[in-house]
Amino acid sequence: MSAATKVIALCGGVGGAKLALGLASLADTIDLSIIANTGDDFEHLGLSISPDIDTICYTLAGIANPDTGWGRAEESWSFMDSMAQLGAETWFRLGDKDLALNVLRTQLIQRGDSLSEITAGMAERLGISTNIIPMSDASVRTVLETDRGTLAFQDYFVRLQCQPIVSDIRFEGAASAQPAPRFADLLLDATVDVIVVCPSNPFISIDPILAIPTVREALANHPAPVIAVSPVIDGQSIKGPTSKLMAELKLGSSSADVAAYYRDFVDGLIIDQRDAALAGSINAMGVATQCSSVLMSTLDDRCRLAQEAIDFAERLQV
Amino acid sequence: MSAATKVIALCGGVGGAKLALGLASLADTIDLSIIANTGDDFEHLGLSISPDIDTICYTLAGIANPDTGWGRAEESWSFMDSMAQLGAETWFRLGDKDLALNVLRTQLIQRGDSLSEITAGMAERLGISTNIIPMSDASVRTVLETDRGTLAFQDYFVRLQCQPIVSDIRFEGAASAQPAPRFADLLLDATVDVIVVCPSNPFISIDPILAIPTVREALANHPAPVIAVSPVIDGQSIKGPTSKLMAELKLGSSSADVAAYYRDFVDGLIIDQRDAALAGSINAMGVATQCSSVLMSTLDDRCRLAQEAIDFAERLQV
Repeated sequence: MSAATKVIALCGGVGGAKLALGLASLADTIDLSIIANTGDDFEHLGLSISPDIDTICYTLAGIANPDTGWGRAEESWSFMDSMAQLGAETWFRLGDKDLALNVLRTQLIQRGDSLSEITAGMAERLGISTNIIPMSDASVRTVLETDRGTLAFQDYFVRLQCQPIVSDIRFEGAASAQPAPRFADLLLDATVDVIVVCPSNPFISIDPILAIPTVREALANHPAPVIAVSPVIDGQSIKGPTSKLMAELKLGSSSADVAAYYRDFVDGLIIDQRDAALAGSINAMGVATQCSSVLMSTLDDRCRLAQEAIDFAERLQV
Repeated sequence: MSAATKVIALCGGVGGAKLALGLASLADTIDLSIIANTGDDFEHLGLSISPDIDTICYTLAGIANPDTGWGRAEESWSFMDSMAQLGAETWFRLGDKDLALNVLRTQLIQRGDSLSEITAGMAERLGISTNIIPMSDASVRTVLETDRGTLAFQDYFVRLQCQPIVSDIRFEGAASAQPAPRFADLLLDATVDVIVVCPSNPFISIDPILAIPTVREALANHPAPVIAVSPVIDGQSIKGPTSKLMAELKLGSSSADVAAYYRDFVDGLIIDQRDAALAGSINAMGVATQCSSVLMSTLDDRCRLAQEAIDFAERLQV
């Protein structure tokens, strides 16, 4: 690999953004492009909302709310309080600062700008040097079949707090969507050194990206090693509903199950030391393993894990 | 007149809203409908903004900013600061609380609700019992020809702070607009007892209402007395650019010039005591006069002037 390692990272929200921040903090040695899930995007209160893009942007800009994992630090809620006074829906909380990105994106989309252009412009304004690229400029919407009927993602995730039992997940619009132009270029770019699948929920954060035609095959055929970081430890998701969902979808909920789900395109999986006993069965699937600590509590954890993913890829490449 | 006097008030923003509040505070004895100018409305940052409707709503709800004359009291500006950080236009200031009304209106308009329905719903939510009716549900936009080119109203009024020299004013969309349904009903309602033209700018706040086909004639032909309150004292506008505009448009800038402009449909004009010398020339136009103090510094002033307008109408009726 050259001195400046060219890295693509597929990324969802909170957990994925932590590793993305770790990768971005290696900016001296790597050239990073983050591909953001947009299956969580939705139109709400007349606004075009892209939760994962925003979480990644806020995290990389150092202005994310460290307590919630979404939204901005030192946020205020006057807008939301006034919306409540006016009888508007308030289950999806938009802070006064956070609202700016959403209002501006909505305006630019209505003007005809692409989500790629809008995201690049906002990242630049926030002082982010990493490329942040939506998976697609087309609308792809994660929809869940549940015991409480068909639910849009944010209805399930935020309004109903993941309580419904999920029987199926689909990505409306994915079949006719294309990867965003810069993502499509990277998928065909032989100078890419490493592809990282961040420790995001495989079914609701990574799968929408994989559901876009050509992406999964392009990852499988790409010359660069593809390294995933497991989002589960000892059968439990680190954050969010991953393990609950995996159980409901009868996919199992261990790191070995994650490996089985990614095996067709992933070359290596970083698993937690507590899952070391699973290494043999994961290796038997043709997926290399590395044991580490995948819990990222501090910025140091994020940088360390990011470097480990790069180093792991380098060893697989050799 | 019956015990519950039925009153229509034509109203612009700040100055007009003061008298509207005075009229509304007589709610025990009058049944009030306020017709709001929407020529100032515009689309900005992707939002549908109706400054005069909102000023009237905030004023009547007791949540208006007493210092600025627009927006809400105890406002915060986190949204605007974040917009500035993102490089968005910030010359039109939208506070965090104020934003709620604008976001909600935009959403409802996109859903297909009429501005009348939206305004009535918001007024109800804000605890306002007075009927607040937009002059029209159609888009009417005040546009000014100036020495700095053709300007949309808010560009002139807020962004350029009324500095350009105005040579003409027109109301785009007015010719094909209709009065909002409840306004149209009131214009034909013989049980209306008094029509009040609030002390708003005749050319930029009242004229858009009059520019809608049938309105000016309906006012002239209505059996109820039409009482205007002069927005100028001694040739100077009490608030805003009225006198500057009148001079530029070569219309003069005295209360007598206001009377001349309204004479075809106004029966009486309340002028300030300092303009008492003009009463004779105004009366000669067929417009009755009453001298009062038209400066409304306190809530008591507003109630007093509102009651004087009703009493003046009653005397003219007899």
